[in-house]
Amino acid sequence: MTRTMRAVWLEDRRLGLRSDVPVPEAPGEALVRVFLAGICNTDLELVRGYYPYRGVPGHEFVGVVERGPEGFVGRRVVGEINAVCGACPACRAGRRTHCERRTVLGIVGRNGAFAEYLMLPAENLHEVPDGVSTDAAVFTEPLAAALNIQEQVSMRAGDRVLLVGDGKLGQLIARTLALTGCDLLVVGRHPGKLALLGELGIGTGSAESVPPASFDVAVECTGGPEGFRIACAALRPKGTLVMKSTYAGALTLDASAVVVNELVLVGSRCGSFPPALRLLAEGRVRPEPLIHARYPLGEGVAAFEHAARPGVLKVLVEVGS
Amino acid sequence: MTRTMRAVWLEDRRLGLRSDVPVPEAPGEALVRVFLAGICNTDLELVRGYYPYRGVPGHEFVGVVERGPEGFVGRRVVGEINAVCGACPACRAGRRTHCERRTVLGIVGRNGAFAEYLMLPAENLHEVPDGVSTDAAVFTEPLAAALNIQEQVSMRAGDRVLLVGDGKLGQLIARTLALTGCDLLVVGRHPGKLALLGELGIGTGSAESVPPASFDVAVECTGGPEGFRIACAALRPKGTLVMKSTYAGALTLDASAVVVNELVLVGSRCGSFPPALRLLAEGRVRPEPLIHARYPLGEGVAAFEHAARPGVLKVLVEVGS
Repeated sequence: MTRTMRAVWLEDRRLGLRSDVPVPEAPGEALVRVFLAGICNTDLELVRGYYPYRGVPGHEFVGVVERGPEGFVGRRVVGEINAVCGACPACRAGRRTHCERRTVLGIVGRNGAFAEYLMLPAENLHEVPDGVSTDAAVFTEPLAAALNIQEQVSMRAGDRVLLVGDGKLGQLIARTLALTGCDLLVVGRHPGKLALLGELGIGTGSAESVPPASFDVAVECTGGPEGFRIACAALRPKGTLVMKSTYAGALTLDASAVVVNELVLVGSRCGSFPPALRLLAEGRVRPEPLIHARYPLGEGVAAFEHAARPGVLKVLVEVGS
Repeated sequence: MTRTMRAVWLEDRRLGLRSDVPVPEAPGEALVRVFLAGICNTDLELVRGYYPYRGVPGHEFVGVVERGPEGFVGRRVVGEINAVCGACPACRAGRRTHCERRTVLGIVGRNGAFAEYLMLPAENLHEVPDGVSTDAAVFTEPLAAALNIQEQVSMRAGDRVLLVGDGKLGQLIARTLALTGCDLLVVGRHPGKLALLGELGIGTGSAESVPPASFDVAVECTGGPEGFRIACAALRPKGTLVMKSTYAGALTLDASAVVVNELVLVGSRCGSFPPALRLLAEGRVRPEPLIHARYPLGEGVAAFEHAARPGVLKVLVEVGS
């Protein structure tokens, strides 16, 4: 008899709570009982139909290994979200997050974290250091995604960096960029969110205050055409624009400006977990002030509605303990 | 009394021949008597109104120094097209081709090469090696622009590289890419132009034959949205798209694909002349087969009309000798 569990279920852009979702069973993978899961903008875009996904959403989680390799069982873990084949050209070339046959936790072909259980290959799991709270560890995945920027673009102390967007991911990116010693300016629309950064000594402002053609790097994490336009205009010649968001629609590109100014545009997605866990363990990034609300799994749909409200940062879903 | 000269003159998108254009006089610059000038797509776009320019177009030339630094007078030269201030932030940061106060020969604020004379700072001029014909040397500027790709993007032997476009600039880019030992495929719409590359042992095909998601680098040099789409679709994850053309309009970007596949887009413009002159001197790039027609300066307007016809490669304007 198949064991079932409670989970948030997405189908045809409708979100509901189900109690008849089979507990995942994948030979060779680890079974994780979920403690806590975070709602990300990608989850909200999935509900809006950004990508046709049917199943349990959620890819930011902390849990405990219930079944898996010896020595791992009973450990508190977070998990990298791309489950890869290891054999396709992308995997063999070392671009495993781009595996041609990948499934992605709660996003592509694999039930996710707003559920009592999830499965992932054991190689995807990372033990959470003792000193890192579960509340902090649930930010590991987006923090790793933030740090991916620095794996792609070299950032030097003193470089002028503009971050467009003060939302969930922007908040984490700002905290990681600030560690590089770059000359950082964050622009956004929410005084309250900008104030969180101001308290950390990070420079903030409005889009209107951005001097044109003067930044070495601009990071766009609003996901919208206006943010993209602001980021492009802010770059000095040969500057780099990092596209770090879930873009639901097409963008219009001033191709002539890209060529004449020899701009570089870089798409940026997932990052690796160890640097993120290290920053959390050292207390160099403290994400807890970004938590705006908590809901039990049984109120998962209400949690999504809360997360979709303007001005709201991280909403967590408490599954177990 | 101001000396005057004959020149092709562009004003309000209309091209005409004038004989009353003042011979340029700029203190501290070198005066060059033009031998030969080439018509580039940027010239054709200027006539179409890509950028509001009033004056003498033309930026690909070979000439002889009539007035300038001692030792330079009487030498056969080509010239880098950006005249820079040396003092602005871009210049001081070493990005001289992006000087904030630059003028650009025949493109921005400086009369160009379809004239009996032009002026450029002496530092912009490069002597043409004796073994390089004037016909070959007139390709120095676009060949330098082609080589700029390799200054921006590292290209390894065996890398799969797609070049979209078989036109004037594409022909030169193909020849320089082939020297890297990369696995090159050129796609275009003109069997005759592709045949020129086939004769050099360069692989060619049609856009329909391009396998998706498989190229390390794609170079777009058609300047159009269809070429851009083909180049994007051909790239493997984390691949690099080089935008190497004069784009007259906006492009629509599938931002989600750029992020999910972590693509890198690089705008590419001018390159430095010494590597181009070296390839010409060594005979490693032979551009002469790209010459489709020659016109005397007096028929400069007809030369432009010829250059604008579909399928035509380089049209030269013979000014003097």
